Amino acid sequence: MILGIIGGGQLGRMMILEGRPLNIEFSVIDKTRMSPSGRLADSSFEYRDYRNFVDSCDAVTFEFEHVDGKVLEYAADAKKLFPNILSVELKRDRSLEKGFLMRHKLPTAEYEVAESGEDALKIAARMGNAVIKQATEGYDGKGQYHILDGKLPNRIPDAKYIVEEFVKYDFESSIIVARDRSGRVIAYPPSYNLNLNGMLLLNRAPIEDYGMADVAEKLVKALDYVGVMGVEFFVKDGKCMINEFAPRVHNTGHHTLLGFSMSQFELHDRIVLGLPAPKPVQYRISGIVNLIGKGLSQEELRRILGINETRVYWYGKDEVRKRRKLGHVNVGAESLDELEKKQSEIISIFYKGKLEDFI
Amino acid sequence: MILGIIGGGQLGRMMILEGRPLNIEFSVIDKTRMSPSGRLADSSFEYRDYRNFVDSCDAVTFEFEHVDGKVLEYAADAKKLFPNILSVELKRDRSLEKGFLMRHKLPTAEYEVAESGEDALKIAARMGNAVIKQATEGYDGKGQYHILDGKLPNRIPDAKYIVEEFVKYDFESSIIVARDRSGRVIAYPPSYNLNLNGMLLLNRAPIEDYGMADVAEKLVKALDYVGVMGVEFFVKDGKCMINEFAPRVHNTGHHTLLGFSMSQFELHDRIVLGLPAPKPVQYRISGIVNLIGKGLSQEELRRILGINETRVYWYGKDEVRKRRKLGHVNVGAESLDELEKKQSEIISIFYKGKLEDFI
Repeated sequence: MILGIIGGGQLGRMMILEGRPLNIEFSVIDKTRMSPSGRLADSSFEYRDYRNFVDSCDAVTFEFEHVDGKVLEYAADAKKLFPNILSVELKRDRSLEKGFLMRHKLPTAEYEVAESGEDALKIAARMGNAVIKQATEGYDGKGQYHILDGKLPNRIPDAKYIVEEFVKYDFESSIIVARDRSGRVIAYPPSYNLNLNGMLLLNRAPIEDYGMADVAEKLVKALDYVGVMGVEFFVKDGKCMINEFAPRVHNTGHHTLLGFSMSQFELHDRIVLGLPAPKPVQYRISGIVNLIGKGLSQEELRRILGINETRVYWYGKDEVRKRRKLGHVNVGAESLDELEKKQSEIISIFYKGKLEDFI
Repeated sequence: MILGIIGGGQLGRMMILEGRPLNIEFSVIDKTRMSPSGRLADSSFEYRDYRNFVDSCDAVTFEFEHVDGKVLEYAADAKKLFPNILSVELKRDRSLEKGFLMRHKLPTAEYEVAESGEDALKIAARMGNAVIKQATEGYDGKGQYHILDGKLPNRIPDAKYIVEEFVKYDFESSIIVARDRSGRVIAYPPSYNLNLNGMLLLNRAPIEDYGMADVAEKLVKALDYVGVMGVEFFVKDGKCMINEFAPRVHNTGHHTLLGFSMSQFELHDRIVLGLPAPKPVQYRISGIVNLIGKGLSQEELRRILGINETRVYWYGKDEVRKRRKLGHVNVGAESLDELEKKQSEIISIFYKGKLEDFI
């Protein structure tokens, strides 16, 4: 079995590592053959060779939604692409994603579309509390403006935006949900997510469901989705609203690498290749801390590995820069309290009280 | 950090897979550069290049004790070899291993050394119930003769043997024990092991200790050992005796790949490289079934993956033959009973009632 992965980043790398035991062969396509996962794969292609790449694979998936359109279309035409192209197309423009959620009556914040920076500010002024989000290309909080009590910036760059009503949520959460080729839906328990400047700093699972599994199930069914998906939620007064979804394995699902019978990566590999995928069992209270924006010294590594039930994933990216995810730490614990303590310890070892310098 | 592995088989392959998250680089030396783990490593050498191999690594270990002596000695001289050369030398001749256990007053069956086949049969006749074991090169039950009630074969090949009193044990067990560079000893809980024709068919953990952790600790201390070791025991009337030890990660420790905070492979990688190694926590009742002597069809694979909490490791060896370990299945369960049921199901899917044809 050969699984093709579009995109050579760390998510693809983990799909490969988690599929190796099964002796799955992996093929990667990216701008360069020497991407982080291309280096670990059995074969590696550049985008211009997309036909050979798709032709040589049994199934094709992607690790990032902003990928070359030609290879996606060619793989879809060959009936090898999982998840389907609709899920990616909705992510090319936030207004399409929001429209889809609304049409399918899935809970999400009210919004309007703005075709210019000026329009966006007008709508936000009317809403009072709003989030202006660039419709295309923004992620990890990039291209977003938070408007509180009608206090507007003078101007924002001209672009297409969506303007959402600002939800004063109690906390953020997410569900890693999956649907197999027969239409069966499987979900991991939801996690509590703590974001800083729009980037995930840490998460913990399991927490209460607040209806999220049900909403996530409706979403993957509405999309006729096959594979693993990350769905991010706001939780407020015991109710959930979708913030956004990612049609792929997701950073908020990395905790499944420790303390579960199966990780999100193995689950995705299995489903995309049409292999059986029983519901993963959570063995241990589990979470992650993301390592963002700076290198990991030998001393920091040693101190983190010295905390029991930690597993350090360092992605081996070429370049270290602010707000770049460079690794994460999996942590297991007996209780959520113990997990929280261990996570605080890891944060102080790695960030040394200077979180804002790196995230 | 570059970890060198002597031997390119499946144990080295799993050391690599389990060390990848930490971004450890791996270098492998074997007869060919294209061994199962050589193919996954960052660099790969043939034995004749042993100096370059050792010089380029931060630490060197081995995945099998019957390896080229020159590379071991060169690595030991460079103070890079873990575990030490003594542990390997004792395994070159069973009479040395048994002598060491006796000298250190570690519980093991009484034995005598025989310099020929004829001698071995004479000693066995005197003992009545005995096991004749070839002193060198035998493993997985090869070169062994079981003598019951003085019933002797006419002749056995001429070789050096040890003749052990046959222990009518209740069951076989093993401990995966480890010792770090500072002398700290860590042990996983013991497993119940079921062997067939001298080969491990399945195991389950945890079981009661029967003094095994204590004996294993004494053994690694006596050897001034650094790394992970597998110690096999006979348990009889609530007491344990060492059958033999393996100075490396061990097939009876593969269950640590599922349901533990850390596998034996990650533990070994950490210790050999001098990284911290807290005691692994067992999250789930856990075991394996070995896949021996035949290929794995797509239908068998699908049925095994359809059982919840299984993870299939297929080693990707070139050649399928009787009595060759070609893979294993990890299984987790709520109880030992449930585990036993799942293991029986896997055995009937893979072996179809014809165990003896393949093992």
